[in-house]
Amino acid sequence: LTANQRGDKSKSRLLVLGDGGWGTAIALTLCSAGHDVRLWSHESDYAAEMKSTRLNRKFLPGVTLPEGLTISSEVDKIGEEVDAIFVVIPTQFLRQTVTRLKSTLPRSVPLISCSKGIERNTLLLPTDILRQSLTRERITVLSGPSHAEEVSRRLPTTVVAASHDLVDAVFVQNLFMNTRLRVYTSRDFRGVELGGAVKNVIAIAAGISDGLGFGDNSRAAIVTRGLVEITRLGVALGAKKETFSGLSGMGDLITTCTSRHSRNWTVGYRVGRGEKLSDILASTTTVAEGVETSRSVFELNKSVGVEMPISREVYAVLHENKSAKEAVGSLMSRTAKHESEDLV
Amino acid sequence: LTANQRGDKSKSRLLVLGDGGWGTAIALTLCSAGHDVRLWSHESDYAAEMKSTRLNRKFLPGVTLPEGLTISSEVDKIGEEVDAIFVVIPTQFLRQTVTRLKSTLPRSVPLISCSKGIERNTLLLPTDILRQSLTRERITVLSGPSHAEEVSRRLPTTVVAASHDLVDAVFVQNLFMNTRLRVYTSRDFRGVELGGAVKNVIAIAAGISDGLGFGDNSRAAIVTRGLVEITRLGVALGAKKETFSGLSGMGDLITTCTSRHSRNWTVGYRVGRGEKLSDILASTTTVAEGVETSRSVFELNKSVGVEMPISREVYAVLHENKSAKEAVGSLMSRTAKHESEDLV
Repeated sequence: LTANQRGDKSKSRLLVLGDGGWGTAIALTLCSAGHDVRLWSHESDYAAEMKSTRLNRKFLPGVTLPEGLTISSEVDKIGEEVDAIFVVIPTQFLRQTVTRLKSTLPRSVPLISCSKGIERNTLLLPTDILRQSLTRERITVLSGPSHAEEVSRRLPTTVVAASHDLVDAVFVQNLFMNTRLRVYTSRDFRGVELGGAVKNVIAIAAGISDGLGFGDNSRAAIVTRGLVEITRLGVALGAKKETFSGLSGMGDLITTCTSRHSRNWTVGYRVGRGEKLSDILASTTTVAEGVETSRSVFELNKSVGVEMPISREVYAVLHENKSAKEAVGSLMSRTAKHESEDLV
Repeated sequence: LTANQRGDKSKSRLLVLGDGGWGTAIALTLCSAGHDVRLWSHESDYAAEMKSTRLNRKFLPGVTLPEGLTISSEVDKIGEEVDAIFVVIPTQFLRQTVTRLKSTLPRSVPLISCSKGIERNTLLLPTDILRQSLTRERITVLSGPSHAEEVSRRLPTTVVAASHDLVDAVFVQNLFMNTRLRVYTSRDFRGVELGGAVKNVIAIAAGISDGLGFGDNSRAAIVTRGLVEITRLGVALGAKKETFSGLSGMGDLITTCTSRHSRNWTVGYRVGRGEKLSDILASTTTVAEGVETSRSVFELNKSVGVEMPISREVYAVLHENKSAKEAVGSLMSRTAKHESEDLV
């Protein structure tokens, strides 16, 4: 390990792959911590625009990109002489993007995976994709309740850095941590990663409930019982139960389900109001990962077979033309349950 | 046990003590389930008003009280020939109220405790107070994310009925459960009761954060880490950890922290905006239990000694004149932590 990798508060050279809101907010935070940061965009025109305007108009409007931040769409040498790489690419584009950059990415430096989702068809999570495409083992997952615009405005935020090897998680903690961003470490990277992916399905359910005109009681029930389902799936896939009570589980779920900024909540809300999914998807340019994730979770759970009634109803509403009202009826008329035995 | 106490879906004679919003919503729900319900108010004038107007103007405005609902402030015979008693009195008035009614309350019927809080000075919870004042053992706790106005509008809601003896919890489940109100049972009455009490302290913290102009990330952190503290305290006091991940823990906490209807959130919000606690309390007639509970939790934790940094800062802001900004500073500048080990 170099001094930087040990997490000394010295200057590191860091590469952030992905010019979305979260990638940009991460880059800004690392810049203000005094590191030497490169932000990579897959589009050369957009990279040129960001370079000249010092704004990320599409994904993080209103925030000035500091002069110290290097912006590039360069493919051949972008990874040269970096101490760590943050990967912040939407899950469905992750494999093709890192494969394209593979030759420039140094093999020995830490990778930090910040994508949230499950890959279509393969049903793989971002760290699995990175491991396969880049032949890496040591990957840290960064997740938690962290709207990009709030992080870039330096509003207090907490996240989790999770890695099988705690040294890597502590390295990320040290890169970032300041009085506005608290980073907790964890060893359960699988649980942290799953929480970030599956919460988007529950956020759609919360949106549907709000779109139907239901209230805080309904939403609290969906979030609470939704976390029970996520935990069941996670434990069946080898994650630790406690992780889902943490920032990357419950914390991120709460934000996604109660914030009107959330793209997934919005899709659900519009479905609850009676719009067709195809019309909603046609009318928006941003990615609501939960639509795809609801399908992946359904497929993933075929082999595991745990009880996930809310996710099941979201799948039925989005992909089987079940009406939102009928779905609520199915949920509320289930047999009476005992809570505690039911929690795992 | 009578047929009614066994939970057969026949008509029970039920007494609801307390004319607040939640007591009234419970009475209405029991009425529509076909039971014979008496709602008791401690004020004879107000009981007379409710009887003649069929409205609970102060505590559940806009909702019609059905003709079938008996309303009374009578003290001597109100408890005669009832099959079960719901106690929905604010915690600080609970002891004096049930002591006053003691002679009329039959000793053998189930009591259902719906109050949330910790008694000043004694640091006792509602079921302890009932046990002491009425010499009862078998008490069921009813709790969960349940804004009264939403329940009375029949918006989908979930709650927990918890009793050491599961028969009692199932009895309550059967009294209530319908397609708009799901009742889960639990054996951990202490955990269910503690969750409902301590959440109000965390709701004040969430309000302070919002009042300071912070965002969703901050609130999610407070709710998530707040639940960790509640769980720690609960486990130290003999409750089960899982209970706090359920509807009466996490579920109720989410609602109280994210809803602008919440009185405790509102107190915190005004503190965060810079108002003095004494001015806030002077300007409102409703009870924000969390102000008192923050003191009780502080006292209660003296003997137990678990780490409760958020509750500690709420106490300091409300009762030791610490500024809200300074409190946030203290929270965000704590030493770096590992999440999972830290969760209990």
